[in-house]
Amino acid sequence: MIKTITGNKDFIESLRGKRASFLLCMSNTKTANIEGITQAGIPGMLHLTPTLDAEFIAIGEVRSLGSIAETPKGVPTPALLTRAVHLLHPFREIEMLELGLEISPKLEHFKLHSFGIAPSDSISDGANIPAEEVFEKGIQFAQNLTIQSDYIILGESVPAGTTTALATALALGYDAQDKFSSSFKNAPSGIKQSVVDQALSRIGENDDLFSILSKVGDNMLIFNAGLILGLQNRDIRIVLAGGTQMACALLVVNRILQMMEGELDTSRIALCTTKWVAEDTQSDIKALLEMNDFALNAYYADFDFSLTDHPALKLYDEGEAKEGVGAGGALMYGLLNGLSKEAITRKVESFLG
Amino acid sequence: MIKTITGNKDFIESLRGKRASFLLCMSNTKTANIEGITQAGIPGMLHLTPTLDAEFIAIGEVRSLGSIAETPKGVPTPALLTRAVHLLHPFREIEMLELGLEISPKLEHFKLHSFGIAPSDSISDGANIPAEEVFEKGIQFAQNLTIQSDYIILGESVPAGTTTALATALALGYDAQDKFSSSFKNAPSGIKQSVVDQALSRIGENDDLFSILSKVGDNMLIFNAGLILGLQNRDIRIVLAGGTQMACALLVVNRILQMMEGELDTSRIALCTTKWVAEDTQSDIKALLEMNDFALNAYYADFDFSLTDHPALKLYDEGEAKEGVGAGGALMYGLLNGLSKEAITRKVESFLG
Repeated sequence: MIKTITGNKDFIESLRGKRASFLLCMSNTKTANIEGITQAGIPGMLHLTPTLDAEFIAIGEVRSLGSIAETPKGVPTPALLTRAVHLLHPFREIEMLELGLEISPKLEHFKLHSFGIAPSDSISDGANIPAEEVFEKGIQFAQNLTIQSDYIILGESVPAGTTTALATALALGYDAQDKFSSSFKNAPSGIKQSVVDQALSRIGENDDLFSILSKVGDNMLIFNAGLILGLQNRDIRIVLAGGTQMACALLVVNRILQMMEGELDTSRIALCTTKWVAEDTQSDIKALLEMNDFALNAYYADFDFSLTDHPALKLYDEGEAKEGVGAGGALMYGLLNGLSKEAITRKVESFLG
Repeated sequence: MIKTITGNKDFIESLRGKRASFLLCMSNTKTANIEGITQAGIPGMLHLTPTLDAEFIAIGEVRSLGSIAETPKGVPTPALLTRAVHLLHPFREIEMLELGLEISPKLEHFKLHSFGIAPSDSISDGANIPAEEVFEKGIQFAQNLTIQSDYIILGESVPAGTTTALATALALGYDAQDKFSSSFKNAPSGIKQSVVDQALSRIGENDDLFSILSKVGDNMLIFNAGLILGLQNRDIRIVLAGGTQMACALLVVNRILQMMEGELDTSRIALCTTKWVAEDTQSDIKALLEMNDFALNAYYADFDFSLTDHPALKLYDEGEAKEGVGAGGALMYGLLNGLSKEAITRKVESFLG
């Protein structure tokens, strides 16, 4: 039920039966305000998506808006999958990392880590991120992190995040064109490409790694690059729960290590995504992972919506939405702890009425 | 669903809902190379059985050979039962104890405890075990052991282990003839008895307890005797997950205690085996347990393959295979945690295709 993308089964099998803490990185980039760039949320309210996702996975309702984030086509947020697993086999704890939000989630009794990071600007105008500072905050967070469980599942909710990830990978010199997934079945490559081209046109010969990141990245990518490196001396295992955006955070790590002539110990890190990303013909997460100098165990949860008749969920199997809010890692957690595809499907359906 | 062999239900009921760590003792004795002595594995490859069993319970595939250990009659290893339970209700962790193997399991990310113990020789030639040293290593391991869970389930995979156990019990003066089970439905008593007779003929009047063990025992029996005694001052509960071989480890403990004029506190120890052993008419685990000076809670998991039509599994109900790789203890763990006989059966079937 867990399939291998790169590496072997051992890492993920060693997590079978273990408890995980779920950490959600929430961030806004104004890139999401560009019309048609993403369907990760409600048009005009896209900035609310991470806020609503956080509320929904934590307490099962949304407080900052009437209803849960849905795409214009009516594809419900992958937060439903994460929440379904949490109801059936709960995470040991859920914590939120606020990496630049317009609106904070309205939650009590849940740990919300704040870093004083502002939402980033659109990469078409220059993201304007204090990249070194955000990176440092990621390192610091990892170095001081304490968890009550056996490992971390790190998810993200960043509308337009695949656009900023594509721009980042290209700006860092990776052959990444056509390798990033999209929340759309038919990715709006015209709009997306034009935004990425605008972003890349702002990069000059004198830009170093961090000045490139400050122009075309997003806070999640940069913070998580720091987090991954900051965990190097900690005895904490982490599953990066995401698709091509998490793969991009690793590409950033790779460039930083090349600059520092450092190496990455990947014995406590893996990536886990959804089947919809792993089998997506319009992107190539495996290729992105293999661009790194280091080898990494990467997996996907062999879950789809073949057991439902619900039309909104069937859209996932047709290629809409695909991943986000740690859905792939959450599904992996459920499957590793004995949940059946059927049980997860029924629970997700129950949210939709 | 858990039935009592000796003692009462209280010990096992107190473990209901608790999490267990599964520890697998793996050992080779060259006794297994005697033709027709065991069907715990593939002829000519019997030494690989513990290695393959370990790989299969940990990661669900075998790496050291193309396919999973099967007896000549096509009875699949009881590791299938242990793995099935682990998938449906995972152990908190799986760790391996390498007590003399020709080939180590090929696993990453799983704790493999190594003790520098060599495979033992055939008891027909003298097992040639440094018995006191192996015993001491068992004590030491128990004294330093840390687990992340509420109790230990200790399984074993030792091809030809019932032959060495029978020889050991007889050599130690127990009235154990016809009380040890076999992986065969119709135990090859001719061959087995002749090997046991050869082993016993090597015991002289001057042999003390440990020199007897060094001639006719196997590493698992001796190490686990140490382990059981080493746990006496630890607040760790343990379920010996096995049949007559685990009963023999207790008979060894009993003789050691008689020699030392010591007593065993059995309040944190139980034995749990399968129905196939408990109801076996050709052996008598209850009688073996009652030969000890101490009383012990012993149980069996009331599971059989009555719900399947799979011919390879039906052989278990006809008396082949019976126990091993902690199957009885694993089934007990599943049943204590709400798994149904049906769910376990379906999962085991899924491995066979």
